[in-house]
Amino acid sequence: MKEDKHKDIKKIPLGILGATGSVGQKFIELLQDHPFFEIRALAASQRSAGKTYRDAVNWFQKSPLSDTFAEMIVSDCKPDLPCKIVFSGLDADVAGPIERSFANAGYYVISNAKNHRMEDNVPLLIAEVNPEHLALIEKQKSSGKIICNPNCSSIGLIMALKPLQDAFGIEQVSIVTMQALSGAGYPGISSLDIIDNVIPYIKGEEEKIETETLKVLGSYKGERIQYADYSISAQCNRVAVIDGHTASVSVKLKKPCSKAELIAAWQGFRSQPWELGLPSAPEKPIYYFEEAAYPQPKLHRDLGKGMSLSIGHLRKCSVLDYKFTILSHNTIRGAAGGAILNAELLVKKGYLDEK
Amino acid sequence: MKEDKHKDIKKIPLGILGATGSVGQKFIELLQDHPFFEIRALAASQRSAGKTYRDAVNWFQKSPLSDTFAEMIVSDCKPDLPCKIVFSGLDADVAGPIERSFANAGYYVISNAKNHRMEDNVPLLIAEVNPEHLALIEKQKSSGKIICNPNCSSIGLIMALKPLQDAFGIEQVSIVTMQALSGAGYPGISSLDIIDNVIPYIKGEEEKIETETLKVLGSYKGERIQYADYSISAQCNRVAVIDGHTASVSVKLKKPCSKAELIAAWQGFRSQPWELGLPSAPEKPIYYFEEAAYPQPKLHRDLGKGMSLSIGHLRKCSVLDYKFTILSHNTIRGAAGGAILNAELLVKKGYLDEK
Amino acid sequence: MKEDKHKDIKKIPLGILGATGSVGQKFIELLQDHPFFEIRALAASQRSAGKTYRDAVNWFQKSPLSDTFAEMIVSDCKPDLPCKIVFSGLDADVAGPIERSFANAGYYVISNAKNHRMEDNVPLLIAEVNPEHLALIEKQKSSGKIICNPNCSSIGLIMALKPLQDAFGIEQVSIVTMQALSGAGYPGISSLDIIDNVIPYIKGEEEKIETETLKVLGSYKGERIQYADYSISAQCNRVAVIDGHTASVSVKLKKPCSKAELIAAWQGFRSQPWELGLPSAPEKPIYYFEEAAYPQPKLHRDLGKGMSLSIGHLRKCSVLDYKFTILSHNTIRGAAGGAILNAELLVKKGYLDEK
Amino acid sequence: MKEDKHKDIKKIPLGILGATGSVGQKFIELLQDHPFFEIRALAASQRSAGKTYRDAVNWFQKSPLSDTFAEMIVSDCKPDLPCKIVFSGLDADVAGPIERSFANAGYYVISNAKNHRMEDNVPLLIAEVNPEHLALIEKQKSSGKIICNPNCSSIGLIMALKPLQDAFGIEQVSIVTMQALSGAGYPGISSLDIIDNVIPYIKGEEEKIETETLKVLGSYKGERIQYADYSISAQCNRVAVIDGHTASVSVKLKKPCSKAELIAAWQGFRSQPWELGLPSAPEKPIYYFEEAAYPQPKLHRDLGKGMSLSIGHLRKCSVLDYKFTILSHNTIRGAAGGAILNAELLVKKGYLDEK
Repeated sequence: MKEDKHKDIKKIPLGILGATGSVGQKFIELLQDHPFFEIRALAASQRSAGKTYRDAVNWFQKSPLSDTFAEMIVSDCKPDLPCKIVFSGLDADVAGPIERSFANAGYYVISNAKNHRMEDNVPLLIAEVNPEHLALIEKQKSSGKIICNPNCSSIGLIMALKPLQDAFGIEQVSIVTMQALSGAGYPGISSLDIIDNVIPYIKGEEEKIETETLKVLGSYKGERIQYADYSISAQCNRVAVIDGHTASVSVKLKKPCSKAELIAAWQGFRSQPWELGLPSAPEKPIYYFEEAAYPQPKLHRDLGKGMSLSIGHLRKCSVLDYKFTILSHNTIRGAAGGAILNAELLVKKGYLDEK
Repeated sequence: MKEDKHKDIKKIPLGILGATGSVGQKFIELLQDHPFFEIRALAASQRSAGKTYRDAVNWFQKSPLSDTFAEMIVSDCKPDLPCKIVFSGLDADVAGPIERSFANAGYYVISNAKNHRMEDNVPLLIAEVNPEHLALIEKQKSSGKIICNPNCSSIGLIMALKPLQDAFGIEQVSIVTMQALSGAGYPGISSLDIIDNVIPYIKGEEEKIETETLKVLGSYKGERIQYADYSISAQCNRVAVIDGHTASVSVKLKKPCSKAELIAAWQGFRSQPWELGLPSAPEKPIYYFEEAAYPQPKLHRDLGKGMSLSIGHLRKCSVLDYKFTILSHNTIRGAAGGAILNAELLVKKGYLDEK
Repeated sequence: MKEDKHKDIKKIPLGILGATGSVGQKFIELLQDHPFFEIRALAASQRSAGKTYRDAVNWFQKSPLSDTFAEMIVSDCKPDLPCKIVFSGLDADVAGPIERSFANAGYYVISNAKNHRMEDNVPLLIAEVNPEHLALIEKQKSSGKIICNPNCSSIGLIMALKPLQDAFGIEQVSIVTMQALSGAGYPGISSLDIIDNVIPYIKGEEEKIETETLKVLGSYKGERIQYADYSISAQCNRVAVIDGHTASVSVKLKKPCSKAELIAAWQGFRSQPWELGLPSAPEKPIYYFEEAAYPQPKLHRDLGKGMSLSIGHLRKCSVLDYKFTILSHNTIRGAAGGAILNAELLVKKGYLDEK
Repeated sequence: MKEDKHKDIKKIPLGILGATGSVGQKFIELLQDHPFFEIRALAASQRSAGKTYRDAVNWFQKSPLSDTFAEMIVSDCKPDLPCKIVFSGLDADVAGPIERSFANAGYYVISNAKNHRMEDNVPLLIAEVNPEHLALIEKQKSSGKIICNPNCSSIGLIMALKPLQDAFGIEQVSIVTMQALSGAGYPGISSLDIIDNVIPYIKGEEEKIETETLKVLGSYKGERIQYADYSISAQCNRVAVIDGHTASVSVKLKKPCSKAELIAAWQGFRSQPWELGLPSAPEKPIYYFEEAAYPQPKLHRDLGKGMSLSIGHLRKCSVLDYKFTILSHNTIRGAAGGAILNAELLVKKGYLDEK
């Protein structure tokens, strides 16, 4: 955090929708001392509304719950919260209409849910990858706006592909994921199902990777998103890892290029969010490791405070062109942290300035 | 086991090379009541030679070590064992010359080590897949012969590809493995390296899959093995599973075919070993599961007493043609059990008959 | 199984209450080829009633579900099932009145639930330990009878204490358990809560061990159970083990005795169920291991087909007299298997004979 | 860290013995920005000596190895290092004579090894518990001095007992540990031995707990340590946890006391190291949790930067008086961190002042 730069910013009040869930808790953990934002409302289902947050939540983050939030009274998820921006960690089965109602009422909705991701005028945003897509919100008809981040398993792939697409063009992508347990929420996967086991299936996950990636990596020139036009094939597996999605990736590129050029593309990746001084932006969005056995979730998931992508072991592929391993932290970069960075970009671009 | 059929066979004496190691132990466990074979010699390194097996071994199989074997005195790995066939569970760093010395001395060497696998006149054998390759041993110049089985991670892939290659032809194969800990031997992988982790690298493993597969699936018409001519790309990962290698596979086929036709090819796969009544041959060499989340190592690795391949969740691939999950037991089908089945085929084909 | 002895027994029809739960599934798995019993009814909650068992259950046992049971229509848990004996794997929150209603209607209820365990006239039965308590059912007023087995964590302790109590008398017992995940049912413990963790608490478990043990080990002379009169202190922990409860135990005995005498007491333990030829009785109810690092759940939980207790590493205790480790399979010996053995004893004692 | 207070201290040069091992690595990780000390020499076995540290070490700490240390040339473990204090992470099989040779040559040796722990004039030191024992070094005849910290599994128990001993007196202690994998070093425990398993034995561990505890909690009035005089019984188990030793403890006290009084004793525990401003001293050396399921290694091992003890779920014991759960970080508080705190105390007490 580079807080000094932000000393004179008046903090923006925010609310958290789905505050008791696992993404909601992560939002609170990451936002508790944020230089831009101040949590003013915690909203959850009717079952929780009216209770103190302490009583409503089964807090299972590592850092203890501070008394400030513990004593807050949980609100209903209704658009009468004392803030102008809300972070949504709502489950997909309720997120759609609730987020829409907030947008209609004039709130900026920073959502981690899948419901509005593929809508034409909703930016599917990774702040380092497609910051220009943010302007898409101006096409949203509602007074408030919705901004989504991609699925946790798409984000790592997209960050790895972005520099390659820019430098060489992409023709085909094949990805096999080994995803962490925290990606399934809490309680999520039963211990009886995953200790000494692999589950070779995650519902809806392959489709998300295959479509979201092309939207984020699509081009936007003020009209509409022109999706990237190559094919992606994903196979998703669940493994006995707490945090950190690992994946084996192969790519076929449009231009011939050397291994050194690929690595240079990744290592030279410049991040607008870092240059803008956004507090959650990692200085190095991509780490490349030459070690064959790297990256590993246990060793590298926390790089860049969980916001950096790790890539390793680039080598020739005899079916496509190159293959390599990627790793990203699914609940930070792949969920709450990525959403917060999107909100920071929104602020920096002036969208929340009083007019 | 269909022992009754074999009642009148006089048992063939055998020796085990590398008897104290993990593959050696598995050989003993699987061979202790075998209808064809009788263990007469346990051989290991000089450190163990001269001790009782009980004192030399750190037995960690589930079934207790029987007194018969516990009391045997461990021999040196020298070709003066009281048998004509030896099973080699030796480590690759010593297996080469020892196995060769046994072959030169007239022994049949059934090897699980990699050293001689790719030699021109050595059959790389999966009894259900390429039994005709066994005849290759007649080209070996030594009085004894060497027969190898492929690497534990290659075997599942080869069994899955065989029916597809026969029915449709294959153009390209991409495989990402999630391999079990027992594949690294004992003590093998440190618990500190794999709990809450994935290791995206196994030394030499990708090369083995990419080359061995093409030899086993090559054609043999009495001359030399004509390797299969398509390209295979492998990425190998280690996961926190005790037994059972899982893999995500994609294939591009020569002929267009429907999902139903692929499944029919697998389910119609006829196994010569089963028809010959070989004791270790599973009745169903391939199980296909329509359930999206199947197969799983914990649930399916023991099918066919650990000798069957499980396949699941066949679906279209947007880069190659089809994708699916495979699973096989790495220490049974992928090592000791596969080698024993090869030896049974050798016996049934009459190679060990007294002349 | 010693089925031949039982060839001429006409099989007794039975029903399973709570057939879709984890204990219910284990009952089906263990009873599918039972020489005494034949499953005629599968009963579960109203949500499942009317469906085929295949549709109602999420079957997660290792052995595949046979078609015979898969096609059975699930009944309501009402006492109109076509059998005279029912096995109850019901959850404690519903078991009480349902089991009572079956007993009132004339059924023999073999229960794994806690609800009726501590009632005066209900035998809390471990067939090898207190078979004489079975006669207590004659004091039950209902036409049917209820027989309970103790909690999964109590059973191992009780089996270990029985020979010591008989030979030396017991003064104090201290036990710290490390219990398996399957003891919490399915889905039970979240993977996020137990990988890389220990949970030092299991609700109600310490009280069960401290009280049930004294009832089972109490004396019965035709009047009422005279509880054993020593004190037991239990501390219960959950660890990342699939099956098999391990515990560190210390005991203070009434008579001085040597280490050899204790081991002799365990190894000399005679089991009435085995002598009666009960099919589920293990030949050796207790295994003693001198190895300091034994027993271990992964290596020893399946001894005696999961029905034997393992004890190891007996040594002096500087606070009480002796300390040692025990291990028993919690879903076989500690639940379904123990209940079935109780039912076998009931049959052998003639209680189910037609009158 | 409260570094500001220490700004004007000239840093003391130090060496690390056994720098490539797991404790040695942890020393480097924790000492890299230390306000009192500066690493000047990394010493290891002859196999490593002469190489850069980068080449000699298999670094597996979470924080990346800094270039400063990576480029240092590893020295032999001979007493000609450019420093006056050495931290020893040597293995017990070599630590004895090496540490002695350094002490003889005038070095202060801060040791984590067991070899000299029980010697009469060697303080077995936990800075919060028995700081007065440090004066014992004045009785050592060598110009240099040896200071040991207790075994990782003893430390948590000792910290929990100290306030109880002071307030109520102790008569008997029973402890059953569930110890983490990192306590066995690296590679340590094979994954095949501990996934889905418990190992109920750790060599020498029970004896260490039963004796070291009594020395640390003994009294010292300038003569010799008078050992505490109660009996302790320990049973040690290894479980599948990466870091953090959990234990179930029972105690019998000399004075009757209420649950509230015990908790007050723990929560009122004043720490001299914190009051002295020692940089590694946790503000709260003991956390007490009323929650029945606390503490847990995954949630609480990092409290106080890994230097605090967690205690939970105090309740009556029917054999001794009270029972509870304790947890401490075995590689920080129980090894490198505890040793560093001891060295900080040594500095603050003036022993390293130039004379």
